[in-house]
Amino acid sequence: MKLPVCFPLLSLSRGISFEQLRRELAEFAKERDWDQFHSPRNLALALVGEVGELCECFQWKGEVAEGLPGWSDKHKTALQQEMADVLLYLIRLSHKCHIDLPKVALNKLAVNAAKYPASLVRGSSRTHLPQLYGT
Amino acid sequence: MKLPVCFPLLSLSRGISFEQLRRELAEFAKERDWDQFHSPRNLALALVGEVGELCECFQWKGEVAEGLPGWSDKHKTALQQEMADVLLYLIRLSHKCHIDLPKVALNKLAVNAAKYPASLVRGSSRTHLPQLYGT
Amino acid sequence: MKLPVCFPLLSLSRGISFEQLRRELAEFAKERDWDQFHSPRNLALALVGEVGELCECFQWKGEVAEGLPGWSDKHKTALQQEMADVLLYLIRLSHKCHIDLPKVALNKLAVNAAKYPASLVRGSSRTHLPQLYGT
Amino acid sequence: MKLPVCFPLLSLSRGISFEQLRRELAEFAKERDWDQFHSPRNLALALVGEVGELCECFQWKGEVAEGLPGWSDKHKTALQQEMADVLLYLIRLSHKCHIDLPKVALNKLAVNAAKYPASLVRGSSRTHLPQLYGT
Repeated sequence: MKLPVCFPLLSLSRGISFEQLRRELAEFAKERDWDQFHSPRNLALALVGEVGELCECFQWKGEVAEGLPGWSDKHKTALQQEMADVLLYLIRLSHKCHIDLPKVALNKLAVNAAKYPASLVRGSSRTHLPQLYGT
Repeated sequence: MKLPVCFPLLSLSRGISFEQLRRELAEFAKERDWDQFHSPRNLALALVGEVGELCECFQWKGEVAEGLPGWSDKHKTALQQEMADVLLYLIRLSHKCHIDLPKVALNKLAVNAAKYPASLVRGSSRTHLPQLYGT
Repeated sequence: MKLPVCFPLLSLSRGISFEQLRRELAEFAKERDWDQFHSPRNLALALVGEVGELCECFQWKGEVAEGLPGWSDKHKTALQQEMADVLLYLIRLSHKCHIDLPKVALNKLAVNAAKYPASLVRGSSRTHLPQLYGT
Repeated sequence: MKLPVCFPLLSLSRGISFEQLRRELAEFAKERDWDQFHSPRNLALALVGEVGELCECFQWKGEVAEGLPGWSDKHKTALQQEMADVLLYLIRLSHKCHIDLPKVALNKLAVNAAKYPASLVRGSSRTHLPQLYGT
């Protein structure tokens, strides 16, 4: 039996919420008395550091296909960990900025859907669009 | 009645899951025939673009306190939108790399907790620590 | 005798040119047969990696004054090395993109001077300006 | 007559020095009373903003060959300007951190040459090397 074409390549774990990660990060910092270091700009700079490490995972590889075929487990694990770090700092930053990250993300998707109507932009190279999602 | 000091400053919306955002992004791209542009490296570069815009929100402000006191609604909204963009690209990238983002993030937190035992690092300036949450 | 107010805090070394660094980088890569890895997008991602490391130097320090007073030699050296890496990758990228970096930079300064006339913007907070130098 | 193989694809303009750009940037800021905004961390965040814009130039293009063949003049100009902005902020940041950028860059090249001896690393994929130039 063939899988239907629309079969999702990946379903993200359902039992882990944004709020759980936010709360665990807050407890993590509190237990270590690290809240004092978590000002918004410190966190923004730390986020950039992690994005840099994420990019290093891709830097000498030339084009990379979906699903990372041919990558060693070591390289896959490294990329996973950098993505995790980016997410954790982003959630921590949103907490310290009092921004409801999942809500604004869902809202942004609706804004983007209105901005780029499927009927108008289908298949057009986004090099000709100002940006993919957003300003 | 005063709120207890530990009252969380922010609870992230509970009804929005990582999986919902992943699925909506996938549908968004499919409807526009944009999957062809969403290779991992294209998405990584787009992520950097959004992180750049996030940093621009902070760039001329000097130190910024928790909760962004004194920021205009316009500046707060701009920051929210950039954070949303970073999150959306990160989820999209994780999908295209077949990485279960919330799961690896939760796991990374456990790794970090073991790496930086609260009893050892409490209050120590992280300028002396290699990083906040891991390599 | 007091130094005049306009005394430059720093003069950059005069005997080292952009062209020298470009040429030494080209020889460095050629001797190692690394040209094959230096595609523009590989270099752009590597540049981001180095910018991430530069930002890590600043990430847990809160506000930092001009000249980095109070920084240890170790931290100063780390920052110097990351700045050097960013510059080297930027020059290498400009070479591989056939862009005359010093010339476009000088030209951009003239464009910026016209865009932000001193008489109009003096002392105005750049939070109200679209950007400092640039689009 | 064929050009020799080692003919440089690009020679960077020789009449423009790092020191000239540093000085012009300093005058630019002074005339506008913008020195007050140019703290090291403000400049670092602005640098990230420009690196983000540089990456946006590459984001939807897939692999890009040396010399940017097939790029429109408009896209080439955009990339030139973003590279210029990155360089200008990097020089400005080095000034405000009292770091002699060309000198540390030249020194870093010597360090890298010793770290990656041509005889040992020739042609080896740098995915197996910790980094190209640097820590």
